[in-house]
Amino acid sequence: MPFKAVVFDAYGTLYDIQSVAAVTEQAFPGHGDIITQIWRIKQLEYTWLRSLMQRYEDFAVVTRDSLIYTLRILGLPADAATLDRIIAKYLDLDPYPDARAALAAMKPHRLATLSNGSPAMLGALVKASGFDTLLDAVISVDARQIFKPSPEAYALIEQTLGLAPSDVLFVSSNPWDVCGAKAFGLSVAWIERVTPQAMAAACIKTELVAPLTLFKALRTQMDELGFAPDYRIAALSDLPEIASQHEP
Amino acid sequence: MPFKAVVFDAYGTLYDIQSVAAVTEQAFPGHGDIITQIWRIKQLEYTWLRSLMQRYEDFAVVTRDSLIYTLRILGLPADAATLDRIIAKYLDLDPYPDARAALAAMKPHRLATLSNGSPAMLGALVKASGFDTLLDAVISVDARQIFKPSPEAYALIEQTLGLAPSDVLFVSSNPWDVCGAKAFGLSVAWIERVTPQAMAAACIKTELVAPLTLFKALRTQMDELGFAPDYRIAALSDLPEIASQHEP
Repeated sequence: MPFKAVVFDAYGTLYDIQSVAAVTEQAFPGHGDIITQIWRIKQLEYTWLRSLMQRYEDFAVVTRDSLIYTLRILGLPADAATLDRIIAKYLDLDPYPDARAALAAMKPHRLATLSNGSPAMLGALVKASGFDTLLDAVISVDARQIFKPSPEAYALIEQTLGLAPSDVLFVSSNPWDVCGAKAFGLSVAWIERVTPQAMAAACIKTELVAPLTLFKALRTQMDELGFAPDYRIAALSDLPEIASQHEP
Repeated sequence: MPFKAVVFDAYGTLYDIQSVAAVTEQAFPGHGDIITQIWRIKQLEYTWLRSLMQRYEDFAVVTRDSLIYTLRILGLPADAATLDRIIAKYLDLDPYPDARAALAAMKPHRLATLSNGSPAMLGALVKASGFDTLLDAVISVDARQIFKPSPEAYALIEQTLGLAPSDVLFVSSNPWDVCGAKAFGLSVAWIERVTPQAMAAACIKTELVAPLTLFKALRTQMDELGFAPDYRIAALSDLPEIASQHEP
């Protein structure tokens, strides 16, 4: 029996968060990579820390605060207009090149996204990419005021779609998100965009590393959290075949 | 009225977690810095993620798993004996040079540590450093099966010492820990070991950076989580004067 729904993470899975690098580089020439990486690392840290501190603020606040942090620690002064211009890219991130075709090929299934993004951020993003016509639901953790990987966030899939976890294939490129979804009880496909071989090769020169390499080392390799994905795929284009089978 | 108790974070505050670098470098020559930094970054990530996933395992497990992750993604094979030898350093971390004198100078106050460490790890650590004779209590979050910055972790101070938050000065060098303690309602002194000026200067060469520089960028500068420390000090030796006053 096929999965009844395929639910996607948004940031890093359907949309390339690294696509902010062009904007950060334009705003601060020579600093684009380090801003992009520290910003993303801190953005996620703040979602976890605020959730754990029971001090939820939505992803728009966290995204802005983590950018403010990044520019401050790099000693790069920014006015409100510059901050706004950089952050605006989050409303128009580049989709991965194979995202549209993969979604279209899976239209027989119900399709949704479950994201840390605020409803306003996600609404703008799916509209800008035209995915709003392909997705049956755009689910934001904001409804529960806690970020992934809290089980409460993943529970929103069943509450929104009315489908049991066993009927859902969850898709993410983020290892911590894969582990969180598995811990919750979903079937999970992990998009492994950086192979272990490429990762180890990039780290051979260990005295100095590119910020992007450090980002990949921290956030693209499967975590040691006691869980493993059901499916390990290289790209979104591998999904339609998996979605039509069901052997989790 | 002076604070009745001064409660210290352990890892990074009383004890220098960077002192594992000598051991990681010895085990994997040329890779000591990158192992040390990724290990520590992932160790904390795993405490936050496991807490949020409601999948607590103690700090000994998290410390081992994060080291396994680090060596795997760097393509460095390790047998159990090598893992054990590296991890053993966590039971004998170097105290900061001014830690003993600062603790001794504050003996009129009740002194304790509140740490993510497991009871066994903390017991070994305070004994190896001789701080067991200076501390009135060694408090592990393990009693609540959740890591800092959960409010449940900070609540252990009152439960253990029988003192209200307003009677306690909490001390940490970890910005996320400072914010968590402030959110809980404690008075907090932040040990700012890396000045903003030093941080920005280290990041001027942004194309390639040392892993230690990236670590400092991620984990030594005050976070944007809506809280600020009551006291901002440069070293543990600044504490005794603060502890004897009480104007939080």
